[in-house]
Amino acid sequence: MIQVEASFIREILQVASSPEVVSLAGGLPRDDLFPVEAFAAACDAVLATRGSRALQYATSAGFDPLREWIAHRMSVVHGVATSRDEILVTTGSQQALDLCAKLFSDGAVAMENPGYLGAILAFRANGVDPIPITVGLDGPDIDDIARAAQMGARLLYGMSRHQNPRGTSYGPEAGNTLVEHLEKRELFMIEDDPYGEIDFGESADRAPLLVERSPQRILYCGSFSKSVAPSIRIGFVRGPADIIRRLERLKQAADLHTSGFLQMALHHMLTEQTFVFDDHLSEIRRTYRSQRDALLAAVADHLPEATVSHIPTGGMFLWLALDVSTSQLFDRAIAQHVAFVPGRYFYLDSTPPDTEMRLNFSNTEPNDLRVAVERIAQARRAAFSPSPR
Amino acid sequence: MIQVEASFIREILQVASSPEVVSLAGGLPRDDLFPVEAFAAACDAVLATRGSRALQYATSAGFDPLREWIAHRMSVVHGVATSRDEILVTTGSQQALDLCAKLFSDGAVAMENPGYLGAILAFRANGVDPIPITVGLDGPDIDDIARAAQMGARLLYGMSRHQNPRGTSYGPEAGNTLVEHLEKRELFMIEDDPYGEIDFGESADRAPLLVERSPQRILYCGSFSKSVAPSIRIGFVRGPADIIRRLERLKQAADLHTSGFLQMALHHMLTEQTFVFDDHLSEIRRTYRSQRDALLAAVADHLPEATVSHIPTGGMFLWLALDVSTSQLFDRAIAQHVAFVPGRYFYLDSTPPDTEMRLNFSNTEPNDLRVAVERIAQARRAAFSPSPR
Repeated sequence: MIQVEASFIREILQVASSPEVVSLAGGLPRDDLFPVEAFAAACDAVLATRGSRALQYATSAGFDPLREWIAHRMSVVHGVATSRDEILVTTGSQQALDLCAKLFSDGAVAMENPGYLGAILAFRANGVDPIPITVGLDGPDIDDIARAAQMGARLLYGMSRHQNPRGTSYGPEAGNTLVEHLEKRELFMIEDDPYGEIDFGESADRAPLLVERSPQRILYCGSFSKSVAPSIRIGFVRGPADIIRRLERLKQAADLHTSGFLQMALHHMLTEQTFVFDDHLSEIRRTYRSQRDALLAAVADHLPEATVSHIPTGGMFLWLALDVSTSQLFDRAIAQHVAFVPGRYFYLDSTPPDTEMRLNFSNTEPNDLRVAVERIAQARRAAFSPSPR
Repeated sequence: MIQVEASFIREILQVASSPEVVSLAGGLPRDDLFPVEAFAAACDAVLATRGSRALQYATSAGFDPLREWIAHRMSVVHGVATSRDEILVTTGSQQALDLCAKLFSDGAVAMENPGYLGAILAFRANGVDPIPITVGLDGPDIDDIARAAQMGARLLYGMSRHQNPRGTSYGPEAGNTLVEHLEKRELFMIEDDPYGEIDFGESADRAPLLVERSPQRILYCGSFSKSVAPSIRIGFVRGPADIIRRLERLKQAADLHTSGFLQMALHHMLTEQTFVFDDHLSEIRRTYRSQRDALLAAVADHLPEATVSHIPTGGMFLWLALDVSTSQLFDRAIAQHVAFVPGRYFYLDSTPPDTEMRLNFSNTEPNDLRVAVERIAQARRAAFSPSPR
């Protein structure tokens, strides 16, 4: 049996789920924004019109009308001409990562450091320990990528927009340089983009997607978990048709297919006029933006010791550095009924930095965000004697 | 990138999906038996009572009330005392196979030959080529298992009831011997049981499940795809709690969790009084039994050359041997608008037997089953000059 490491973040989320704890630890979208009525109507409509066929086995590649809808949106909104055969529907975008990790499991892979925990887990579960790539405020370090390529890496993983955990996005120049290197070194890259649609429209220099600039080298992963709801478990990969076919076969071995019923219900929502996807996205963006503002204001007021090196212009997370060990602070914070994720858990290193933390702002009201930051500040004061300033 | 072999059966199913073809090739349950109304009512009830919480991220192990329902049924109906912590809900039982294959991917594994194609795919996708175990009409060959254990196998895969593709079940004595060997050699075994509930009640000597006799050695995989509907994508593994915890972590890396909404809807159906699961199973059993009888009668009338070494007492498949190459017969049969799966595709061997075929009887009306067999007989006559008898 292979070794399967326990995930510290799961234990954190367990502790943080206690009702008196204000948790900024998770990565949950705000559930009162979920389109419950539109989804209920879609379920009814699919079962009324398609009946039992909606519940039968379905194809591994996905429900064709949904693949076509996604291909059309990639073409029109994201500017990368896409056909149905370049889309694989997956059981959440986590499955897209798992299948890509499996496809490239015969060689080395590289990923952003710090980076998304689920990607680390997916690579390690497929027997590959990713080579860390330093990622600055503007994008991944090209020298690190060159070194990883020399070590045999064939695949790079990164989030180009509103990264988890740090909230950073790749700049236009950095993205161009990255794409040149991918092509020169014949590397593939997973452009994981679960938060791309949650953009507050504040960046003057918004970069095009990597997949737009190098559609043959990029495996673009998208998700409806943040833009519609997580429990429909629908994500997708956009890639060259020959790679999509291989991923489709791996998907067949992994779970045969994603629920056809849920794919039909999602497609119904996306194409019916009562639910307007782009209006829904706008509402999410407005809400999360005001929560981000509340969190930033609370940090400025109550945690002046914190260093915020990047103000997120989208997504769900704020990344802070403090003057104390955040993993030691965690236990004290739980005693004060507040939770966050210590930054060290997002690093691949064996001895990661220990003064950072990730705060989620998508699932907490502005008032509670303020309470949470006050409690973190109390925990810091209670645990440590700060040096005079 | 790893090599991913194309699945011939997918191509068969593609060809067989043409409307004029009567297909006995697939493995679909009969969709007019799906409880569409009860499912629609369950979707409505879950969304009405739980609202947006039904659509939020959920736990990797599964929806606790569903885990408890499954544990209770394992305890009461299958006679193996089970607690919630011994159950992992999976995205169809195919995912259970994938996760088990991944867990044991650091060593050799063994499986029934011929056996379930999806299990072969799951092992190979995880980098393991299974060691073939001959399986007789009564159960797997113990000497083969001993040899596989000597070659380092730590896991054995088999279907103890109404096997896919041959429809056979393990006898009580063979099962006892098998369990003794598992324990003596410290082997784990996947007891895959997707057809166990589809039992026609005809076997006088029905054996207890292996998991009942050796709960610490067996990873029992169950599915609601045949007993409720495939597109809800809900299966499960029952195993020792420490192995379930490891599989749960692998599941987190694979797709985070199975749709909480679908788990809640299934649980609602299983516990509401308007849908009675056991009555529903009885209806499926009656229907499939009469279709099995129609298929057997048609084979006796129109394909007297066929050898039926086992009459299935449940499940969805009949296995035949003919006096001709069934892979050559396949193209001729398609020309006659009938499809089946040539037996060779269920073997692990590089040069498998080529005179067998698998016929599905779950998804075809009795009259069409007769038409299908007549067409297979015509194809046989058209393609070959049978030797005088």
